[in-house]
Amino acid sequence: MKVLAILYDGFKAAQQEPRLLGTVENKLGLAEWLKSRGHEYIVSSSKEGPDSDFQKHIQDAEVLITTPFHPGYLTRDLVQKAKNLKLCITAGVGSDHIDLNAAVDHKIQVLEVSGSNVTSVAEHVVMSILLLVRNFVPAHEMIERGDWQVSDIARQAFDLEGKVVGTIGAGRIGYRVLQRLVPFNTKELLYYDYAPLPEEAARAIKARRVEDLEEFVSQCDVVTLNAPLHEGTRGLINDKLLAKFKPGAWLVNTARGAICDRDAVARALQSGQLSGYAGDVWNVQPAPKDHVWRTMKNPLGGGNGMVPHHSGSTLDAQARYADGTKKILENYLDGKAQEAQNVIVGLGKYETKAYGRR
Amino acid sequence: MKVLAILYDGFKAAQQEPRLLGTVENKLGLAEWLKSRGHEYIVSSSKEGPDSDFQKHIQDAEVLITTPFHPGYLTRDLVQKAKNLKLCITAGVGSDHIDLNAAVDHKIQVLEVSGSNVTSVAEHVVMSILLLVRNFVPAHEMIERGDWQVSDIARQAFDLEGKVVGTIGAGRIGYRVLQRLVPFNTKELLYYDYAPLPEEAARAIKARRVEDLEEFVSQCDVVTLNAPLHEGTRGLINDKLLAKFKPGAWLVNTARGAICDRDAVARALQSGQLSGYAGDVWNVQPAPKDHVWRTMKNPLGGGNGMVPHHSGSTLDAQARYADGTKKILENYLDGKAQEAQNVIVGLGKYETKAYGRR
Repeated sequence: MKVLAILYDGFKAAQQEPRLLGTVENKLGLAEWLKSRGHEYIVSSSKEGPDSDFQKHIQDAEVLITTPFHPGYLTRDLVQKAKNLKLCITAGVGSDHIDLNAAVDHKIQVLEVSGSNVTSVAEHVVMSILLLVRNFVPAHEMIERGDWQVSDIARQAFDLEGKVVGTIGAGRIGYRVLQRLVPFNTKELLYYDYAPLPEEAARAIKARRVEDLEEFVSQCDVVTLNAPLHEGTRGLINDKLLAKFKPGAWLVNTARGAICDRDAVARALQSGQLSGYAGDVWNVQPAPKDHVWRTMKNPLGGGNGMVPHHSGSTLDAQARYADGTKKILENYLDGKAQEAQNVIVGLGKYETKAYGRR
Repeated sequence: MKVLAILYDGFKAAQQEPRLLGTVENKLGLAEWLKSRGHEYIVSSSKEGPDSDFQKHIQDAEVLITTPFHPGYLTRDLVQKAKNLKLCITAGVGSDHIDLNAAVDHKIQVLEVSGSNVTSVAEHVVMSILLLVRNFVPAHEMIERGDWQVSDIARQAFDLEGKVVGTIGAGRIGYRVLQRLVPFNTKELLYYDYAPLPEEAARAIKARRVEDLEEFVSQCDVVTLNAPLHEGTRGLINDKLLAKFKPGAWLVNTARGAICDRDAVARALQSGQLSGYAGDVWNVQPAPKDHVWRTMKNPLGGGNGMVPHHSGSTLDAQARYADGTKKILENYLDGKAQEAQNVIVGLGKYETKAYGRR
């Protein structure tokens, strides 16, 4: 059996730090084990264009392992060429880089390591909210360049206490974000989702559901996106919706870059309609050098909290998703049932409600 | 009556943003009110040396208003020259810039606006912990300069979940920090303080007291300082204690810069004994341009989360401490009792246990 993994290059860092499991160098820690079971294991970061290792080896691989951090985009076209492909494993959470409808049609299963990094991402969201609201980045830059002018920072620094925070998507990540915000004495915690939370879960965090999206965003000082990318969420945050935001709101997106219209977000930040935008996801990854989200600022020169896609790839998370990937492989090889929560696409059908379907 | 306030210059920011109350320009919002009551109100940022407005006007002022952000240092020498001084008000929390023993001797009362910014600072602490543990600053700098190398960030990025966090000082700020950390599923929350928390308060946040300081720091992945500066805490974090920290621990200090030995902290970060140091307080403020804390880094080039002293000076906090300052003044002018929680030094004696005494 041929297993193909598309991971990111860790270079020197991965040689020095064996806990960087999700790199080409450290191969999710699976190399010895797969070899001992007699399987071929190809690992590469080369993923773009017809001559890439991805497009070459996908043609006879039986298992494909990818991550959201350096996504190998499995299009319908590639699915059609992947004659032996039976199983796609996302080492992490979020399988939007795979054409799920094509996977259904070709009876390719798609699995994620569902619990592996939801906490990591939720922590990143809370951090991002705090650093935008409290105006951290310009403050740190001021110190580093040798200046000291408290008023220039304080004029756009606020407390999270007393603000309204809302999540679009109250699933495994969004709910964890709200849980972590409970002790901050926010004015209110809101959520927008296709279904209400179970009553007890909503009560535990005193969260209120708002069913109309425009009404939802107009009530929030802070909006955080915690929904998967699919046909129903692509471009959801566009000029029209941003105009309905509270003037000066903050927006945090660690879900998927393409849920936001890139240029609409930049315009909203530059005009001050948004006071800040932070997150770690980009419409293309790696983001091009000239991507406007790298350097966009609000009118006072702050409000940018962007980082590369790493929130779900802490060393703690890498240990969990490497371990989870191995368990999925073991179940597959041994013909055992997979954990239900990990199955996005089963044999010829969707098994989750989280992704939009046809 | 002459009231002297030493505040920071807000320049253009303060002209454009009237909510920047704690600036020379906006005068804590007290100018009209004090004038209407027939008092003289001097406001200046000039505070160093014998020709400064501070040293000139302190000689006949009856009330002195200062802040921790741009502290007017009231030494024993100046107290002796301040023949009319009856009341010192700290617009904020932390009165270590006043020689409290001298105030006791000269029957000068010292009051703070005790609740005004404890939440603001607690939020800043939680933000700082998250951004150190998750390696935010190098990640953001990487994006801004046009690079993308996830492994260089991820190799020093961790989750807060599962870590041990401890506060030195579990008073109004330290306790609020622990409260906010409860939902993060830390391995344990610890505190070191001269007295145990009330049983119910400790149980509510499942915090465990460690009575020996060296034992305390050796158990923490993250240490946060939330104690006042006094004779007993000055230089507390020195080479000897830092050597007892867990290797690679993170340290957050939003209390007072002088609780840490400046050079010992820099050495610990540069050697990797500390993975990160963050906070907004400095041994001298404004910090000199060449202060080592501005640019010190760990061996991997990250771990610096320093900002100017603004965590307690958000616009929300400024509204609260301006309001609280006015109430203290009103009580004083009308001969009414002050709120007990605000009194650091009463007439000739300490009224709080938080500050070390003679």
